[in-house]
Amino acid sequence: MIIVLKNNADAQKVEELKQTLTGKGFKLHLSQGENTTIIGLIGDTSNISEDWLYAKDVVDSVKRIKEPYKKANRDMHPSDTVVDIGGVKIGGGSFAVIAGPCSVETRPQMIEVAEDVKSSGAQLLRGGAFKPRTSPYSFQGLGSEGLKLLKEAKKATGLPIVTEIMQIGHLDLFEDVDVIQVGTRNMQNFELLKELGKTKKPILLKRGMANTLEELLMSAEYIMAGGNEQVILCERGIRTFETSMRNTLDISAVPMLKKKTHLPVIIDPSHAAGLKFMVEPLTMAAIAAGADGVMIEVHNNPEKALCDGMQSLTPKMFDDLMNKVKKTVPFFGKTMAAQVPVNR
Amino acid sequence: MIIVLKNNADAQKVEELKQTLTGKGFKLHLSQGENTTIIGLIGDTSNISEDWLYAKDVVDSVKRIKEPYKKANRDMHPSDTVVDIGGVKIGGGSFAVIAGPCSVETRPQMIEVAEDVKSSGAQLLRGGAFKPRTSPYSFQGLGSEGLKLLKEAKKATGLPIVTEIMQIGHLDLFEDVDVIQVGTRNMQNFELLKELGKTKKPILLKRGMANTLEELLMSAEYIMAGGNEQVILCERGIRTFETSMRNTLDISAVPMLKKKTHLPVIIDPSHAAGLKFMVEPLTMAAIAAGADGVMIEVHNNPEKALCDGMQSLTPKMFDDLMNKVKKTVPFFGKTMAAQVPVNR
Amino acid sequence: MIIVLKNNADAQKVEELKQTLTGKGFKLHLSQGENTTIIGLIGDTSNISEDWLYAKDVVDSVKRIKEPYKKANRDMHPSDTVVDIGGVKIGGGSFAVIAGPCSVETRPQMIEVAEDVKSSGAQLLRGGAFKPRTSPYSFQGLGSEGLKLLKEAKKATGLPIVTEIMQIGHLDLFEDVDVIQVGTRNMQNFELLKELGKTKKPILLKRGMANTLEELLMSAEYIMAGGNEQVILCERGIRTFETSMRNTLDISAVPMLKKKTHLPVIIDPSHAAGLKFMVEPLTMAAIAAGADGVMIEVHNNPEKALCDGMQSLTPKMFDDLMNKVKKTVPFFGKTMAAQVPVNR
Amino acid sequence: MIIVLKNNADAQKVEELKQTLTGKGFKLHLSQGENTTIIGLIGDTSNISEDWLYAKDVVDSVKRIKEPYKKANRDMHPSDTVVDIGGVKIGGGSFAVIAGPCSVETRPQMIEVAEDVKSSGAQLLRGGAFKPRTSPYSFQGLGSEGLKLLKEAKKATGLPIVTEIMQIGHLDLFEDVDVIQVGTRNMQNFELLKELGKTKKPILLKRGMANTLEELLMSAEYIMAGGNEQVILCERGIRTFETSMRNTLDISAVPMLKKKTHLPVIIDPSHAAGLKFMVEPLTMAAIAAGADGVMIEVHNNPEKALCDGMQSLTPKMFDDLMNKVKKTVPFFGKTMAAQVPVNR
Repeated sequence: MIIVLKNNADAQKVEELKQTLTGKGFKLHLSQGENTTIIGLIGDTSNISEDWLYAKDVVDSVKRIKEPYKKANRDMHPSDTVVDIGGVKIGGGSFAVIAGPCSVETRPQMIEVAEDVKSSGAQLLRGGAFKPRTSPYSFQGLGSEGLKLLKEAKKATGLPIVTEIMQIGHLDLFEDVDVIQVGTRNMQNFELLKELGKTKKPILLKRGMANTLEELLMSAEYIMAGGNEQVILCERGIRTFETSMRNTLDISAVPMLKKKTHLPVIIDPSHAAGLKFMVEPLTMAAIAAGADGVMIEVHNNPEKALCDGMQSLTPKMFDDLMNKVKKTVPFFGKTMAAQVPVNR
Repeated sequence: MIIVLKNNADAQKVEELKQTLTGKGFKLHLSQGENTTIIGLIGDTSNISEDWLYAKDVVDSVKRIKEPYKKANRDMHPSDTVVDIGGVKIGGGSFAVIAGPCSVETRPQMIEVAEDVKSSGAQLLRGGAFKPRTSPYSFQGLGSEGLKLLKEAKKATGLPIVTEIMQIGHLDLFEDVDVIQVGTRNMQNFELLKELGKTKKPILLKRGMANTLEELLMSAEYIMAGGNEQVILCERGIRTFETSMRNTLDISAVPMLKKKTHLPVIIDPSHAAGLKFMVEPLTMAAIAAGADGVMIEVHNNPEKALCDGMQSLTPKMFDDLMNKVKKTVPFFGKTMAAQVPVNR
Repeated sequence: MIIVLKNNADAQKVEELKQTLTGKGFKLHLSQGENTTIIGLIGDTSNISEDWLYAKDVVDSVKRIKEPYKKANRDMHPSDTVVDIGGVKIGGGSFAVIAGPCSVETRPQMIEVAEDVKSSGAQLLRGGAFKPRTSPYSFQGLGSEGLKLLKEAKKATGLPIVTEIMQIGHLDLFEDVDVIQVGTRNMQNFELLKELGKTKKPILLKRGMANTLEELLMSAEYIMAGGNEQVILCERGIRTFETSMRNTLDISAVPMLKKKTHLPVIIDPSHAAGLKFMVEPLTMAAIAAGADGVMIEVHNNPEKALCDGMQSLTPKMFDDLMNKVKKTVPFFGKTMAAQVPVNR
Repeated sequence: MIIVLKNNADAQKVEELKQTLTGKGFKLHLSQGENTTIIGLIGDTSNISEDWLYAKDVVDSVKRIKEPYKKANRDMHPSDTVVDIGGVKIGGGSFAVIAGPCSVETRPQMIEVAEDVKSSGAQLLRGGAFKPRTSPYSFQGLGSEGLKLLKEAKKATGLPIVTEIMQIGHLDLFEDVDVIQVGTRNMQNFELLKELGKTKKPILLKRGMANTLEELLMSAEYIMAGGNEQVILCERGIRTFETSMRNTLDISAVPMLKKKTHLPVIIDPSHAAGLKFMVEPLTMAAIAAGADGVMIEVHNNPEKALCDGMQSLTPKMFDDLMNKVKKTVPFFGKTMAAQVPVNR
């Protein structure tokens, strides 16, 4: 970390700052220019915030050299992390597809979609039991009843399940869930992240719709700092000024995250665009850009879906898409993860 | 709500849609044009989501005429809601100032700042015990110990206290807190909002840094739908492309919210800009634009503050600011709320 | 277009509005609901702006059913437009690569890069003679001298050339230029667009960094309305809150534009990310998402480049990339455009 | 400027970089840390771009200490610039109001509005002759005929006139115009800015709707570098995700610009919100935040306005607003500029 002092910095205050920093265990490297004095901070600066330094009267500006995340940093862990979900691998060259309805609605719907996506080749089953909805008057998900149906679908098909948690108090209900999803609105729900850091479950962490990639990695760091390093990052579209689609898929997040971190990175094209016809081209773009997986909404009857019908594929459309995915993944040098029935 | 059907809409599917809508209790008003058929939906459309309609094959587009929030809507409640905090009034022409440190650090700090802001005229005391920090390695707040110190400061000064909650599990700890703050990162933590709807405490709801005003009102609606109508809205800067300040204060939110809702609207200039020298001009702009209050960070020693020192005023700077506030509020036709010592 | 009137709309003013609209040649379709009156406007509404209607006291809201662009609209022209540049085809299944340095610097540089990109398989040569730079103190391009060098490179290699115009007054200088580029900062320089509409040259129109896709299409419409329908659209990254890369590539723009318009759509991965290592994955994503071409910066010595060295590939890197492009384009069902030496 | 070198930087390449920089006339200040070498660049760095440095292989990161603008920088020119328009002063404590219709439509309209705004106290008259419209099918302004009508209104009232230029070729037509406006879409039309730098007219430079404040100042620098230091900056709303108003007024731009530059800063509340009812609160906020003026749209018959009727005040509304402005400006310590009839 580099601290540029003000030209007219009060000598005594500079001395105090230097002592404070030394007291925190840093070695200082001073560079006295004609007009500018620069302090180089040597040591682990991840627990120093720029703001804390900017608050000092003598500080003109601060430049972080080293990223503020450690466990998520590829520097510390050059090889890819592979998250293993009962044998289904994501990362390190293994590509997985998570598919299923936006929300769990009924037993027949859930079982039917689960069987359909399994037979098309999906390795993991998704379905929302607790649903974050903008309006209190919208369908809020079936809750614990929904989780039960999801587990029945898991039993029926052997597909591991991925579903979203919305509060710490529900954690007990997620015992048989294979991957716990943190939704875009909870990416900076730090209390939740801390608790998830104490579990041993893989966590699918969605990027907040207006969060930077560094903030996403800091949220992963919350989970990892707690001891759980099984984090899958998910880009699902960011909020911009564009109005013709729900969100703007940040495809560049894939190569940038792959450079910065060893964690697997997947794409959710369904939420990104919010429109069915875009799911295929965005899935192809995700594979081409180097993603480790995709998460796709499939509904046996999108017109009757209680949420997100606009973006849900029919099982037939999903089957067509999977045929393309199976060819495209090896074309870009990755392998489709094997379907591995979980212990029921 | 107006539903525009596709030109070539399948007659049977149109019939099904009409029956579904009638089944939900709506009266339909049909308008058959040469090329376009329009359905006007008459009834309470707040529990119909646009997405659900867009998922229907026969639907071309949807236009909501009526806002999707009801209890927060000024149409339903033309006069201003006044939130009363132990006698301190916010809204309906009464302007209040909430002041205090970003985070509670020590007993002397908290007591000293509390006494300072009281003597300058603040009506409410703020201080963070639970702190949402981007980095897991940053100071996370003193937690329940911080709440205790805050309550001591309340006892010492009689100022009602405002502090942030970060998870439902902490709710019991907030019994003696006068106003519960929901931070920007939790604006769409719907589980938390639902629980707060069951309390009887005034809630200070901060706008998410990338949320629309409609989404803010929908979050207020979550609290109000639960039975708690004491909601204070707070604009605290939104995330844009501009990099010279932390966030971009959306001053237009004040007149727009005042038009759409009866709830009081306050401004947090400290977090908006993140820079001390901007607090005064933004406070003045807030008053001029019609805000019902401001929330300002004050620290007895900003250079030593454990967080947000860059934006914290010294007690002296705050005192100068309050002198201007006291003149400016009546100039724009509002009254400064009275300082009313709360029952200790 | 649908016009929703206010509940309490003054009858006489409504009558006036109806007469104004009828006077403009529209047929009106009225739908009188209990509370709401809706006017459906039948006719060519592309010259009616929503704002003009919103200014009427009796109007509550307006909904456009038909897009405001006509010539660019795929509805009017279902098959793909193929832009033909001296035999090099872009669109309709033909994929072309435009490559070259950010700015023309010297004769040897320009000739060397031109020969390199030609031998790697690029079909078109780019190079900036007039450079839009944020700072007046930065290198502004060689101007007409640069155009001369670019034309020499064209002569030497037979590659058609693409270069940016910055003002109408320079149009004469562009006689031997094969494709005139309108840069991101000039996407809404309507006077320039009008003039370009009078030329017979293919125009490469870059999306403004904060413009919607509809605005991009409206700018294409300016050119087309003037009689020049040879417009190539280019997505080059939009401005968002993300700071780790220069801009955010909006990959969804590809499928969305392909749906809305018949014009070819290309991607500029170099400017989008501003970082060398991202050019390959974003190029692959562009092809996968359905783009008709890419535009890539190549410099024989990026470290010495007078601008944009950070994002420029070396000829060797470009050659490796082209080997992948040549395999990927047919994998996704398109054909590489043939290299066709232009008449020198 | 501070250049941080990579840990493993090649010694010879470092040497080359140092020589290049020395060759450009900089003095270098080296700081050799254990792992990091830092070069401090001493001299005028305004013509060094960060990108050029980032393109060097040995460079890890770059930090600019000094702003890249010189003539616009308050450091170089601590006292406020006062722009004097035939005696009407903007800046340095003098507050001016520019008012008039969005576009010049007819002689009676223009004369009537001009007389109305004059009698209400506006010091300058606005009116668009050349209009930048998103659609080629919208009213494009009366062009040179509109300029003639505007000059007649100037003659009739003595109010100096402000109007927008859209291309260099029109410059001759602007001889009798008192202030030339550069619109938001042309803020980075650098060719136009260079030409305006050669004129002696005051320039009203509007911020691009997605441009940073630094970019705005760099555009002002283009004009000033050409020799014309009479630049008035105008914040008119930026593009964000918020949809309830046209743009988001960045009120913080006022104090931030006042800190960074000596140039006057005005606000355009009409374009910012695009809604009539917001013009007053945003005008008040502008004054409170320290602006040197406002620019307001007034139309004698907003319902019939050919553009922007939604946001245009009637003369009566404007008169009411001016009564408040006249009280509010002195309350915040500024003086209303005098109305000074220009030489006709």
